Amino acid sequence: MSNGDRLRAVRAAMSADNIEALLVTHLPDVRWACGFSGSNAALVITATQSVLFTDGRYTVQAKQEARGTRVVIARKSALKEACALLETLAKQAAFDPEHTTVAALDMMRSAVSGKIRRSFFVPLKKLIIAELRMVKDAEELKLMRKAAALGDRIFNELLPDISSGVPETLIAARLEFLAREMGAEGMSFDTIVASGERSAMPHGKASDRKVTRNGFITLDFGVILKGYCSDMTRTVCVGKLSAEQRAAYDAVLEAQQAGVAAVRPGATCGEVDEAARAVLRKAGLARYFTHSTGHGVGLEIHEAPRLAAEQTLELKPGMVVTVEPGVYLAGKFGIRIEDMVAVTRRGNSVLTQAPKALIEL
Amino acid sequence: MSNGDRLRAVRAAMSADNIEALLVTHLPDVRWACGFSGSNAALVITATQSVLFTDGRYTVQAKQEARGTRVVIARKSALKEACALLETLAKQAAFDPEHTTVAALDMMRSAVSGKIRRSFFVPLKKLIIAELRMVKDAEELKLMRKAAALGDRIFNELLPDISSGVPETLIAARLEFLAREMGAEGMSFDTIVASGERSAMPHGKASDRKVTRNGFITLDFGVILKGYCSDMTRTVCVGKLSAEQRAAYDAVLEAQQAGVAAVRPGATCGEVDEAARAVLRKAGLARYFTHSTGHGVGLEIHEAPRLAAEQTLELKPGMVVTVEPGVYLAGKFGIRIEDMVAVTRRGNSVLTQAPKALIEL
Repeated sequence: MSNGDRLRAVRAAMSADNIEALLVTHLPDVRWACGFSGSNAALVITATQSVLFTDGRYTVQAKQEARGTRVVIARKSALKEACALLETLAKQAAFDPEHTTVAALDMMRSAVSGKIRRSFFVPLKKLIIAELRMVKDAEELKLMRKAAALGDRIFNELLPDISSGVPETLIAARLEFLAREMGAEGMSFDTIVASGERSAMPHGKASDRKVTRNGFITLDFGVILKGYCSDMTRTVCVGKLSAEQRAAYDAVLEAQQAGVAAVRPGATCGEVDEAARAVLRKAGLARYFTHSTGHGVGLEIHEAPRLAAEQTLELKPGMVVTVEPGVYLAGKFGIRIEDMVAVTRRGNSVLTQAPKALIEL
Repeated sequence: MSNGDRLRAVRAAMSADNIEALLVTHLPDVRWACGFSGSNAALVITATQSVLFTDGRYTVQAKQEARGTRVVIARKSALKEACALLETLAKQAAFDPEHTTVAALDMMRSAVSGKIRRSFFVPLKKLIIAELRMVKDAEELKLMRKAAALGDRIFNELLPDISSGVPETLIAARLEFLAREMGAEGMSFDTIVASGERSAMPHGKASDRKVTRNGFITLDFGVILKGYCSDMTRTVCVGKLSAEQRAAYDAVLEAQQAGVAAVRPGATCGEVDEAARAVLRKAGLARYFTHSTGHGVGLEIHEAPRLAAEQTLELKPGMVVTVEPGVYLAGKFGIRIEDMVAVTRRGNSVLTQAPKALIEL
């Protein structure tokens, strides 16, 4: 989809919701809608205009990236100048309450005339661009497939470096070095390397703990390619596992596969969550599965939809979600397995290809 | 300073500003005030109580870290439960408008009784904890000195890897690997490696461009140690420079040294900015110095104070700021030199020790 196609989609949604003018300030939304990837931006969209406000650092970049959108280099505040323009274009302007601070709203109000100050800005009831961003176009899917494949290659190259006695931080260092060497722009979040009893921490960032024998090690990481994030988790073991550990691994793997199998057009996010959760319930492990099953991924590492209990949103072709059940037995061990999965017309396509059968190092 | 000392300082500031109860949700503020470093937190502070709300992922960690503060594991929303408690403790509660979204404020309001909903939450006029955090205590200064020294070591070890033909991303990869290997928890921001004409981009994240001969390469990076950030920039050259490039380097170095020399108790932030800017003005380069001279650094990579024109805030012993003038000639080259500088009782102490005389590789 070109920038023009995306702006058309935004305008159609605005029209359906009776929104005359939209102020876009959340940077991934700005990037998606007009192509600009800088760190300071306020984008104004009406039925006939799209105008990007940024600052002097981005004069060249904004014109290169934001094709089809008029670029204004603000002298003082990009946000305030955008609001001043909005006042001349519409009677009210919608903004994103999830990504606008109370202080920013005050600043926006201060940029319009006193008499309309309290009524001019209206919070969006439905986050138009976040909803549109859920469904990826062909180009986005290609990039995300490439990002996921890069994750796979990193994982495979990393395996020989994992052994007992190696600190988690060094494994993270090696992983991130491989990512950079293979062309990643950066990591999409703080790399998680959690070994032994630390694997029971769902968000165990790499620490100076050394890998010990006869335990799990969970690796959860992602790379960024042209702004798009990958996300994958594998749990491997060093040495021998107990029967309890092995049974838990098998249950998590089965739950993950059941979750993936449930991803198809028309399935609700809650159904995918339940498909994974039911397997762990049957195995007596549901109470150790303390988070939701997955989330959308794209220009942000966490974006809509949420794959959690009771979420009624229906999956559509083009959505890309993670499926990542896990169990965490405090003080003992933890296991999580995560793939990125694209919803297709007939079912799904798993983007992550690294093996999921237990790897014993 | 212990957690207790910090809470006492917060309460003294609350009392001075007639604030009965404070809701703290900005995570670096929570960490500073009570010690808790998790990713979900709402901290309630009154004259007699301090209560931290978080979720089940952090049961153990919260109790370990937040000594002296009561910990509540929320069943659903830590933020809403904190607000419900606030309603029982005070007539009004202050919150941080810079870090509270419009949607979060709506959620906060929905957690208190209907009749007080509109009036209960009052935005702070002065960000109490951000102001207290500007002045670092002895333990924080020690950590920041250590983080800066780690930056120096990384820079020195990295130099032999910089030569023409090497992609910027590989230099960033090596830099970040060294950081991890030497014990950094992570990088404090996306590493900037900008070579040749890309050095004219103040925020040129490492790209796949290969270093070419006879040009500058700017390295701007920071590490995190126990939550505290370092920040340093050096611009080195590969091959020979033109007379224009050399003169510009000398001017930026002189400006940086003048900025550092101006850092002392009682100097205003604007005076430090002007000390650096005046040197570049004299050299005819002021219009290429397109950003402010520096910023505070600590638990966040950018925090108060701002070292910019007309900032009247006076420096105090214990503040740690960056001094980082630069010039950016679009399409040609750019140069920036940055140290971390601590304000001492009699003047300052430069934390960054890497050489600033031009390094020719």
